[in-house]
Amino acid sequence: MHTDYLLPSKTAQELYQLVKNAPIYDYHCHLSPREIWEDIPFDNIGEMWLSGDHYKWRLMRAAGIPEEKITGSASWHDKFLAYAGAVSLAAGNPLYHWTQMELSFYFGVETPLNPNTAEGIWEQANRVIREKKLSPRKLIEQSNVAFIATTDDAADSLEYHEKLKNDASFRTVITPSFRADNVWLLNRRDYADYIAVLSETAGISITDLKSLRKALSLRLDAFEQAGCRFTDVGIPFFPDGPGTEAAAERAFADALTGKAPDPEDYSAFLWQMYIFAGKEYRRRGMIMQLHLAVERNANTPLFLEMGGDCGGDCIGDVISGQKIVRLLDAIHTEGGLPQTILYTLNPAMTAQLCSIAGSFPKVRMGAAWWFNDHKRGISDVIQTIAEVHYVGSFLGMLTDSRSFLSYVRHDYFRRILCGILAQWHDSGEFSGDVGALAKAVCYGNIKNLIEEK
Amino acid sequence: MHTDYLLPSKTAQELYQLVKNAPIYDYHCHLSPREIWEDIPFDNIGEMWLSGDHYKWRLMRAAGIPEEKITGSASWHDKFLAYAGAVSLAAGNPLYHWTQMELSFYFGVETPLNPNTAEGIWEQANRVIREKKLSPRKLIEQSNVAFIATTDDAADSLEYHEKLKNDASFRTVITPSFRADNVWLLNRRDYADYIAVLSETAGISITDLKSLRKALSLRLDAFEQAGCRFTDVGIPFFPDGPGTEAAAERAFADALTGKAPDPEDYSAFLWQMYIFAGKEYRRRGMIMQLHLAVERNANTPLFLEMGGDCGGDCIGDVISGQKIVRLLDAIHTEGGLPQTILYTLNPAMTAQLCSIAGSFPKVRMGAAWWFNDHKRGISDVIQTIAEVHYVGSFLGMLTDSRSFLSYVRHDYFRRILCGILAQWHDSGEFSGDVGALAKAVCYGNIKNLIEEK
Amino acid sequence: MHTDYLLPSKTAQELYQLVKNAPIYDYHCHLSPREIWEDIPFDNIGEMWLSGDHYKWRLMRAAGIPEEKITGSASWHDKFLAYAGAVSLAAGNPLYHWTQMELSFYFGVETPLNPNTAEGIWEQANRVIREKKLSPRKLIEQSNVAFIATTDDAADSLEYHEKLKNDASFRTVITPSFRADNVWLLNRRDYADYIAVLSETAGISITDLKSLRKALSLRLDAFEQAGCRFTDVGIPFFPDGPGTEAAAERAFADALTGKAPDPEDYSAFLWQMYIFAGKEYRRRGMIMQLHLAVERNANTPLFLEMGGDCGGDCIGDVISGQKIVRLLDAIHTEGGLPQTILYTLNPAMTAQLCSIAGSFPKVRMGAAWWFNDHKRGISDVIQTIAEVHYVGSFLGMLTDSRSFLSYVRHDYFRRILCGILAQWHDSGEFSGDVGALAKAVCYGNIKNLIEEK
Repeated sequence: MHTDYLLPSKTAQELYQLVKNAPIYDYHCHLSPREIWEDIPFDNIGEMWLSGDHYKWRLMRAAGIPEEKITGSASWHDKFLAYAGAVSLAAGNPLYHWTQMELSFYFGVETPLNPNTAEGIWEQANRVIREKKLSPRKLIEQSNVAFIATTDDAADSLEYHEKLKNDASFRTVITPSFRADNVWLLNRRDYADYIAVLSETAGISITDLKSLRKALSLRLDAFEQAGCRFTDVGIPFFPDGPGTEAAAERAFADALTGKAPDPEDYSAFLWQMYIFAGKEYRRRGMIMQLHLAVERNANTPLFLEMGGDCGGDCIGDVISGQKIVRLLDAIHTEGGLPQTILYTLNPAMTAQLCSIAGSFPKVRMGAAWWFNDHKRGISDVIQTIAEVHYVGSFLGMLTDSRSFLSYVRHDYFRRILCGILAQWHDSGEFSGDVGALAKAVCYGNIKNLIEEK
Repeated sequence: MHTDYLLPSKTAQELYQLVKNAPIYDYHCHLSPREIWEDIPFDNIGEMWLSGDHYKWRLMRAAGIPEEKITGSASWHDKFLAYAGAVSLAAGNPLYHWTQMELSFYFGVETPLNPNTAEGIWEQANRVIREKKLSPRKLIEQSNVAFIATTDDAADSLEYHEKLKNDASFRTVITPSFRADNVWLLNRRDYADYIAVLSETAGISITDLKSLRKALSLRLDAFEQAGCRFTDVGIPFFPDGPGTEAAAERAFADALTGKAPDPEDYSAFLWQMYIFAGKEYRRRGMIMQLHLAVERNANTPLFLEMGGDCGGDCIGDVISGQKIVRLLDAIHTEGGLPQTILYTLNPAMTAQLCSIAGSFPKVRMGAAWWFNDHKRGISDVIQTIAEVHYVGSFLGMLTDSRSFLSYVRHDYFRRILCGILAQWHDSGEFSGDVGALAKAVCYGNIKNLIEEK
Repeated sequence: MHTDYLLPSKTAQELYQLVKNAPIYDYHCHLSPREIWEDIPFDNIGEMWLSGDHYKWRLMRAAGIPEEKITGSASWHDKFLAYAGAVSLAAGNPLYHWTQMELSFYFGVETPLNPNTAEGIWEQANRVIREKKLSPRKLIEQSNVAFIATTDDAADSLEYHEKLKNDASFRTVITPSFRADNVWLLNRRDYADYIAVLSETAGISITDLKSLRKALSLRLDAFEQAGCRFTDVGIPFFPDGPGTEAAAERAFADALTGKAPDPEDYSAFLWQMYIFAGKEYRRRGMIMQLHLAVERNANTPLFLEMGGDCGGDCIGDVISGQKIVRLLDAIHTEGGLPQTILYTLNPAMTAQLCSIAGSFPKVRMGAAWWFNDHKRGISDVIQTIAEVHYVGSFLGMLTDSRSFLSYVRHDYFRRILCGILAQWHDSGEFSGDVGALAKAVCYGNIKNLIEEK
């Protein structure tokens, strides 16, 4: 990867030198703590890339590749070749950028991936994997990652987090993030089963909202113990407004008996629980992340065959800013908001969310998420934060990834950020300290927030 | 028109050379097959431009020109002069670009049109019209159009399409597109009359949904026979979600008796009929186009005086992506989607639609439509498709026009596309085969889709 | 401020020379006519900047500055220093741009404001204030302001407007704008008290809609007498559609007795009153401004402590274009629209609003408003107007400000406009008279509209 990739000016290139090798604080990802603990070396680049990456699966489907070579029984070699064909025309797609960046950074490949080069790159990448015995920890270390917040179910045993915490040999701080989506998703078919698991993990019988709250509180204690700094929610529902405890109780009781709760009751449940959760997060100094506007499992046949997280999700409808305001305001009024980060999958909400963030203390707009994690999307979020909120307190990038190769997304972000700052500097629109700003956004602000507790 | 118009770099200019003279596949337009068949030479540029183009009428109204000189009784000469005045300050408007491009390509006029040059241009253009005996077919041939899909009512006799199909002397393939908007618009005052016409054309008495389906199926057979590849819908309604056959039946019965159907029943009617239509399209290998988010006839006095399509339409509200997902998913679940193209008039939906397209097989995002058919709009759609879906399978441009001069819109698109691809290439963001990509998007992909059947 | 600030090309710089010193028509602002009348010299830049500017307060809060130094009891000097720290990292924020521009234009400070330079700038600015005895009228004159439309409550006595009108020594035309938000806000706690004040000012007892209409008509007469050209509304509600007079009457009666009106009745009230108001504006030749999509007082603790306009507002939800169309169409159908300007705080509505404007006579899209009043936001609104409506009739900029220093926002706008026009010119996309266009947008169109009556 040439040193001026995505860095269109001398100023951009100079700025980038200041943050290029700075530590990575990956405060939201979906890496497996077990895989980090076990640290099993990888076998081949086909498996590394295509065993679980639904971004790539979607691209391959859009290119007309048969499912056999996407998630089917074809060999990793053949899947890799199929992907090479698809990505070779994926101009403008972040997968094109990431693919080239990953090949360069981790495998020393500087050739564009396409059907003609695919065999050679397959060989070279796999040789590097074998020679370097590339494994999760090796990739994390090579990427200079100081901190990782994985995403962990509220009922997770945190077993691997405990092991990692006690392993002095590995210097990257690995922490769990508390994600209770499975508690909030009352309409799941196996809801009662899930609550049974949660009961067991928490060591308390959950029969009503009171015991549910107690259980969540106990789990948060355990997460805190394991170093948890971040919490998260990413369900495709949002409370419509204030709802009573009685309605919330009814929704929960219905869900436990396998009955779909009334929509108003469900909304009340989310309202009551989010306000409860907000308080719990705040008193533990945990950071609350809201991932908004996602529509999951759009394609039913695909979902029935493969389950979730396989490429059937899409950008959700715009969520009413008024509803978001009401919820934040209610938590704020009841004793104060925790540190809060708002993300939206629907870019039509970005400016409004930034303006909402600016109306409350401790609320910030998060980085461009998922379908927005591309050059224009990242650029738009950075600029909108700068325009409507305050770029000086922006927390910068996270990978949101399941792959140990995705640290290049931080590099991608840093280059794009430096390009914007350089443009502001060179045009005279900003005559302040761009270097300090680049450092603050790339790692300073998030580092301070993590260590603030 | 200088050769580097809208082509800001050498790479862009070189790329453009690859697609400049490529055949045009105009897969969605509103040209009249009768006018193509009759092929009557035009009289003057005033009539060519201003007899039916509501884009231009709106611009003239915005410029404060009295209706007399827009759609009133003023002469074509005076209307042309009035338009020249309005467009001369229409910087940034696609009409400005198209006006200059049409003057250059069809009339050899390289002077900007404004009040000072208008008389001279009027003379020169009309001289060219006379000397070349410019007619619909001449313009189509001169524009190197390989394929045209007009937009035809479900009850259309297809008489002129039959004549054109049997005319070996004209090499451009002219096909009808099946558009059943008048069937879906239950709230039209003359609905029963329309259904009577449809009954007659189909040769079957339509009294209920069963016979309506039969009639539509017969009409689709006739369209297929006439070479139809595309279908289309562009009504300002969208089904809210699944609705029963009984409710749909009720809505149709109400409409036939002149009663406004209950909104829920109407939604059920659209739901049931769209799912039916999707299947019918699929088994005939026809391509389904959905034109979403249009608000028609906003200005009642204008509508009462002049009817539809005269400049009173606007961008409709964002349609819930969840609703779109439900409909596509239902068609997909019931045996598979036809090839599908999604268009939106509301640019706030673009990214979401691209993400929806990526969740289903055979669904693609369409080109920038109507109010979005300008440089930034086209550019935004191309880039969003690239970022969120896959530019490699993008179908490129269509004119959506009533005018035989509008083929410059393809040239407009090709220049803008080449500018984007060149920028990606020159910045090193894309190192793949931009030439192949330009060709695929400009004609390769749509040609393959049309011939795929 | 160097002469090429925000002017990236020679053409842009030349264009700017044509409009740089042109008179300012500030047709929407929140300046106090009393302060203009009294014309008391300012004391220090801290008070000038931080006594009432909620834009700056928000930025300081986002930067983590304690409220003590924002709206609390800290000295102006210390507040100024705190602001200097916050703004020094506010790259991309319009406050950064305006701060530098105000320092340059009014105080001759060309040094960037930051913690190191703050003390010196505090000294220099205050010295200028003292030496020049800077006062409201001095700043207005220095800024070459030809016309000001303040924003005045419907019940305002217009006392200071009368005084200003009769003061021949001050050449800037100062006019009131009619804003009846307090009449439309039925859910205000002190609604009956407000109506009592309005009764008294109008000199008529208001007990029902008939007397309310009479009172508003009388007030409009008084405003007209005082030179009023503009009216305005900026409430966070919009009528859902046609509602009966009876329902409207019920809503008003409820409000007078302190009862929250039924939402449907409230909508009917707005519908009936807006149609009434539209007619009243039209027959007086007044211009109707609709400020749409604002969410006010999001942060309840802040509101309870400090009231409105203190930094707790945000971008409101998108308002249905269909609803806006219905209202405009109803006013248009009942005898014609007044000259109308549409503004939206939610940028996801911009294109749709432009398309709505184009469907009606006399309706225009307004300038980028509030949270959108930054370089990209201004640029986007100009371009969208050009693309979807008609830049030739665009009315250009207004300050919307409470501060006498905000005239730099006109300069900001003019530079951005010239940059866009120059880019269109230099790229060959527009070969018309850019100078004429720049003048028309910067002052010609608004001047004509004001004088049109």
